[in-house]
Amino acid sequence: MIRPGTPVEALDTPSLIIDLDRVEANLRSGAEIAAASGVALRPHTKTHKSPYFAQRQLAHGAAGITVAKVTEAEVMADAGLTDIFIANTLFGQAKAERAAALAARVRLAVGVDHIEQARALSGAMAGAARPLDVMIEVDTGSRRGGISPADAPALAQEVHALPGLSVRGIYTYEGYTYEAADREELAAVQRAAQDVMVRLGDGLRELLGIDPVVSVGSTPGLLSGAGYRKGITEIRPGTYIFLDAAQAALAGGVEACAAHVLATVVSRPGPDRAVLDTGSKSLTSDTRSSGICRTAGYGLLPDFGLTIARVSEEHGVIEGEGVERLRIGEKVRVLPNHICPVVNLFDEVIGVRGGVVELVLPVAARGRLK
Amino acid sequence: MIRPGTPVEALDTPSLIIDLDRVEANLRSGAEIAAASGVALRPHTKTHKSPYFAQRQLAHGAAGITVAKVTEAEVMADAGLTDIFIANTLFGQAKAERAAALAARVRLAVGVDHIEQARALSGAMAGAARPLDVMIEVDTGSRRGGISPADAPALAQEVHALPGLSVRGIYTYEGYTYEAADREELAAVQRAAQDVMVRLGDGLRELLGIDPVVSVGSTPGLLSGAGYRKGITEIRPGTYIFLDAAQAALAGGVEACAAHVLATVVSRPGPDRAVLDTGSKSLTSDTRSSGICRTAGYGLLPDFGLTIARVSEEHGVIEGEGVERLRIGEKVRVLPNHICPVVNLFDEVIGVRGGVVELVLPVAARGRLK
Repeated sequence: MIRPGTPVEALDTPSLIIDLDRVEANLRSGAEIAAASGVALRPHTKTHKSPYFAQRQLAHGAAGITVAKVTEAEVMADAGLTDIFIANTLFGQAKAERAAALAARVRLAVGVDHIEQARALSGAMAGAARPLDVMIEVDTGSRRGGISPADAPALAQEVHALPGLSVRGIYTYEGYTYEAADREELAAVQRAAQDVMVRLGDGLRELLGIDPVVSVGSTPGLLSGAGYRKGITEIRPGTYIFLDAAQAALAGGVEACAAHVLATVVSRPGPDRAVLDTGSKSLTSDTRSSGICRTAGYGLLPDFGLTIARVSEEHGVIEGEGVERLRIGEKVRVLPNHICPVVNLFDEVIGVRGGVVELVLPVAARGRLK
Repeated sequence: MIRPGTPVEALDTPSLIIDLDRVEANLRSGAEIAAASGVALRPHTKTHKSPYFAQRQLAHGAAGITVAKVTEAEVMADAGLTDIFIANTLFGQAKAERAAALAARVRLAVGVDHIEQARALSGAMAGAARPLDVMIEVDTGSRRGGISPADAPALAQEVHALPGLSVRGIYTYEGYTYEAADREELAAVQRAAQDVMVRLGDGLRELLGIDPVVSVGSTPGLLSGAGYRKGITEIRPGTYIFLDAAQAALAGGVEACAAHVLATVVSRPGPDRAVLDTGSKSLTSDTRSSGICRTAGYGLLPDFGLTIARVSEEHGVIEGEGVERLRIGEKVRVLPNHICPVVNLFDEVIGVRGGVVELVLPVAARGRLK
């Protein structure tokens, strides 16, 4: 049991520490950017996986939340969240039935980029009192999921005609923003994607007679300073709440990061090598070696200007100049490259304020894979 | 609830499927290799993180088990495992006290590569009825933890003299075996490391008057066919129980793999692209791009000869030739690059025999980071 009032440096390691004041500052800043562009903010909760932080986002004016999985949506609904968008395509009877059950008790939308997914959802909605909202996923350059802009209107029309379904709008994931070389290119790719989405939204208005939600998402997009053009109605950033080594620069520096892994120097096997008790089992092996969010190695020690050169499951190895400053037994802060999957590796996070523990929060939606 | 008798293809995805017959075959084969070299087998349970599979390893003649963390050791001890080696250096009072408490109820050994770790353990053992066994970690080329062979004897002597501690022997992790270019080089690096370890063991026998355990570990080392030379007394392979895309070739092919992620083709956004509902949140982003265990991409679809080209948290993207054979909604088998951290991402694994579910097993030691 970790008691409130415990100083951070007394905590066992590795632990995932969240600075609650910094969270509030980041949420405020994100909300201000959204308000300045007149877009609704629907944060992606995959970054924190916790109803507590989802509620903090609502307190800062978020219109609803985003999740990646129907099981994550269930966790959030059980905790009292009432407006949830599953920004992912789901397939199969089991998941369609869970989504249909959930739609009976919260305001729900589900992503679709193929008519077969929609047919499964439509089948599960048979007999439902009100239709399930569907958002059509559009590929604006991430080359992941999403239908091509050219094919999106026809799919939207087909889905809208299915019993039990109603198209709410369109969404895209701006994954390519991470690969922009600088702020200028970042703003340019954002504008290009927004133009595509707004045109598609205008088309849907005529085609379906709806006032469509036009939703874009990514934290680099939020922090780029480019803003959102008229016709974009909703944004879904995730990482902005905590930030990480990759995104710190866009937010003004490592001081903006609200999350770090507290680790111990458990071994000093040679003068030029130190080993931390945090490896891929707590930092992941995610790298970010190119683009505006590039960062070296597997985690940054902001208090030493050092990076973790190699990870195995339980070990983070630091080598070379500067290592001599790391004493065995010392506890150090590590900023992960990519905070979202790191949160997924911890059963709980430790919320601190002014360097002392305020609360311990279960990562309630951790490991929800389905 | 997943009922016994359910066919694998009816399971929701992503799920981690374990072929129990294949597990038995792999355990038998590993035990035979150990027996042929006359070494004790102490499997690293990090691969499965489950007392059930640990017990199966004991049933196949394992002398005890290996874990990476004191909290993993607690899970195993609570489940009735009685001979546990924490093959990792731990630091700090909290962990030392847990280790000391555990040493009172099971046969325990703990890794040490620095006198400061040993002093903390010694302090925690004050008043204990019997000493805690310590294994000195030696770096034979992995450049992770481990003291240099030259400095190992002096450390062993110093640790052995501390109250409450008793040096049981030495151990090394053969991480460099993964980087060997071929079987010949693999056997050569193994032999070189074994020579170092045996010499050190002989030295300890004289220096401390003990009959030292001389322990080496890694699955490539087990599967290389090189065997273990006289003087090596214990081996600690982990992955051999399940195997994975990286290690399949060493074991004779993908048919030897006992674990796969069952995934669904959730999107077919274009003729040359398919998207699976398994990404880094269920496969990790671990790659293995060089060495004898090299494998492409982020996961292998053995039934299609395709690999996952890119992962994000929830998506695995497959592109190019052959993708046209993947129908939307189809369930496919994916062999992970590295099975150990994949198991850590699942709350439960599904044990099957002959393609139907036999049992669902919690991954009891999942997420034990401390």
